[in-house]
This record gives sequence, C-alpha cells and structure tokens, in this order.
Amino acid sequence: MSMSEPIPIVGGTGALGAGLALHWARAGVPIVLGSRSAERAEEAASKLRAAVPDAKVEGLLNQEAAKRAKIVFLTVPFRAQSENLNNLREALEPGQILVDCTVPLAAAVSGKATRSLGVWQGSAAQQAQEMVPDGVAVVAALHTVGAPTLADPDAELDEDVLVCGDRKADKARVARLIELIPGLRAVNAGPLEMARIVEQLTPLLISVNGRYKAHTGIRLTGLPDGDHWA
Amino acid sequence: MSMSEPIPIVGGTGALGAGLALHWARAGVPIVLGSRSAERAEEAASKLRAAVPDAKVEGLLNQEAAKRAKIVFLTVPFRAQSENLNNLREALEPGQILVDCTVPLAAAVSGKATRSLGVWQGSAAQQAQEMVPDGVAVVAALHTVGAPTLADPDAELDEDVLVCGDRKADKARVARLIELIPGLRAVNAGPLEMARIVEQLTPLLISVNGRYKAHTGIRLTGLPDGDHWA
Repeated sequence: MSMSEPIPIVGGTGALGAGLALHWARAGVPIVLGSRSAERAEEAASKLRAAVPDAKVEGLLNQEAAKRAKIVFLTVPFRAQSENLNNLREALEPGQILVDCTVPLAAAVSGKATRSLGVWQGSAAQQAQEMVPDGVAVVAALHTVGAPTLADPDAELDEDVLVCGDRKADKARVARLIELIPGLRAVNAGPLEMARIVEQLTPLLISVNGRYKAHTGIRLTGLPDGDHWA
Repeated sequence: MSMSEPIPIVGGTGALGAGLALHWARAGVPIVLGSRSAERAEEAASKLRAAVPDAKVEGLLNQEAAKRAKIVFLTVPFRAQSENLNNLREALEPGQILVDCTVPLAAAVSGKATRSLGVWQGSAAQQAQEMVPDGVAVVAALHTVGAPTLADPDAELDEDVLVCGDRKADKARVARLIELIPGLRAVNAGPLEMARIVEQLTPLLISVNGRYKAHTGIRLTGLPDGDHWA
C-alpha cells in the first residue's frame, strides 16, 4: 500500500480510534476519522489538527470514511459493533480488509469490564466476518492497547499487538500499519478464530490494571528477533 | 511457610512437573514427586537426583505426596485432572492450597493443542475447586510456562506467571514459590474465575510457537517495579 493512502477509522471519535489516529498522524499517515455524525467527525479532526499541526486528517460519516482506503479500522465498543457493521454493508467492497478491534466486554450490557460476553460465532471478530460483505476479509487486532496510554502524548508504548486473520498477506499489511506506531510490535497470532482468545486478554488486562493501578500491555517473550512479516 | 517444607507435585513425573521440580531442586527446596505408580515416582526422583546432585527429593504415590505440605501442585494433563482430583479426595485436608496448572486443551480429546475445550464450571481451575474437599483453596498458575523450556537446564526463563485465586494471601504464598525459580515473576491476575482467560493463553502460545518455531512466554508490560505481593 502506498503511504499516501489514508487510514480510515470507523468510530474514530472514540477513545481507541482517537488514540490510534494521534499516533498515525504523528507518523505522517493521512487519517480519515469516521463517525455517525459528520459534525462530530469534523470536531475530532479539528482536535487532531490541534494536537498534530501538520496532520492530514478529514472527518467524515463512517460510510464515507470506509470507502477511502483498502484497509479500514473499526474501533467501536461491542455494544455498537453490529449496528456499525450493518451501516457499512453498502460501503465496504470485495477486496477490502476490515480490522476489527472490538472486545465483547460484559460492560456492553452493564456488566463488568473484567468479564466478557459469549459471542455465538466465537468472537466479536468472527461475528464481524459473518456480517461484512462477501470478499471483505476481517483481521482482528489492537484489543490490548489501552486507549488511555494511546491518548497520552507522552506515554511510551512497549507492547505487542496480537493479530488474527485467515490470510497471512492481509495480516502483514495490517501489521505494517500497526508498526508505524513506535513501541508496538505486531505478532501473528493465527487464524481469525484465535480472536476468541485474544479478545479475552482485554478483560484480563483491565483486571490487572485495576489491581496494580497500572496501564499494562502484553508482550510475548522468546520470539525471534527481526521482521516477523517478511 | 518454612523453606524446609517440601513442595509436593502431583503428576510430578510429567513434563511440567519434572521441569518445575528441576528448578525448585536447584533452588534448594525439598521436592516430593507424586505419581500413580510408586515405582515411576521413585524413577523420576532418581533422575532428579542425577540432574541436581544435592537435590532433596522423594518419589511417592500421589495421595501420599499430597499430604506432605500445605501447598500442593497439580501438574497433570486435563484428560487426567478429574481422575487425579477424585484420588486426592481422601488425601487433601482443609487449609491446604491446591495449585492447579491444568489447561483444557482440545488435545485431551484428540483435538488440536491450539484449541481448547469448554469446561462447564468455566475453567479447569474452577472444576478443581468444585472437586476438592471443603476448605481446600484452589489457586491457578503456571499455565503458560512451557515444559520444554523448563526441562532445558540451560534455558533462561524470562516471563510472567499469571496467578488466579479467591484469596490474596493464598496467591501470595504460591507466588513466593513460583518466584524461587529465576526468571519467573508472579502476577496477581484476579479471582479464580479469571482462570477462564488465563488457561486460554496456553493454546495461544502453542499456536504462536508453531508459527515462529519458538518457545514463547507471557510478559505484562507497564506493571510497577518491586514486590507485588508485599
């Protein structure tokens, strides 16, 4: 992918989306922030321009944002995932990659953020794969990167991102974008069904964070050095 | 606990148990290796004495081993967990702590080691809690420490052990034993129900290990320094 192709973030006005946008904008990548409201999308874009003066950023309706590049990030809470995927049905086209960052926290139904909901398909990512148009591939990633850490312009990231998907080439393209953010290493965590496990890491980290008053991330030790995606 | 109290390992002739025993013996802790066969227990004890000449180690039947200290480790495959817990019913007494290391891999029923089985109680550890006598507390730990790494006397460990249990004091006692092994840090991962998540890390790591030809472990980044258990 050309580095001049933007990164559209559906739900880009939320905490995770805004945090990712901040880091990608700093890395010089054009960003398209999507929202259900064009006005809120433009507000978020203005905020990002204020934080990163040379940011190339637009704010658009989610459906418009999703048409702007081959790889689209979905960073909405689980409560809103199905609604957003329904809204994207006419926008997404075969050949696109949807990067689902959704975590089925029990908080979605007023339960605890340290517990999760069972998703019939096995994981939120597999639900997404069922809901996107034919020919759109879902890759699951970024569940364990904390929005507060991402939003803190002074925080140094130091963690892995476990990437699940059924085609290595798709995961490699997503990994390149993730690794534009300093301190993040993308690890191939296997087929999309492994999102059943990876999505569960978030309530685990939320639980540890509360206990230790910390912002934790995941790191796999023992991996070989060098580019994992070549 | 006095450091002269031994560590009984039920299933101590298996790969995980033998690996843990090797490291604890090196740290000078007396070990009681348990097995369903007194002969195999004694064979494993001899092997450990050969590897660690000053090891204080006995080999006993599991039921006898479990009576030898307050904290007992259970390191059997999920396939054998219920049978072992049934056999321990007369051996364990109120006030003891059973450290369950079981992972419900689908391999238990000839499935893949990168997939897991659903356990009715939520996790293998919660199944163990249901099966032990009243007054015995289950703590879940050591799921993600690879037996091949433990068994390699030259391998340097560098990973966290996520410890789940309903009482912090119990977890702290288990953490002290875990941290006798150089390179392991014990992290309080919450109540026993969090074993639902922690047990799933093993198939995830097995999957990554196969893909990267590596022996990976888990590390949480962002935790405060110092003794987490004081």
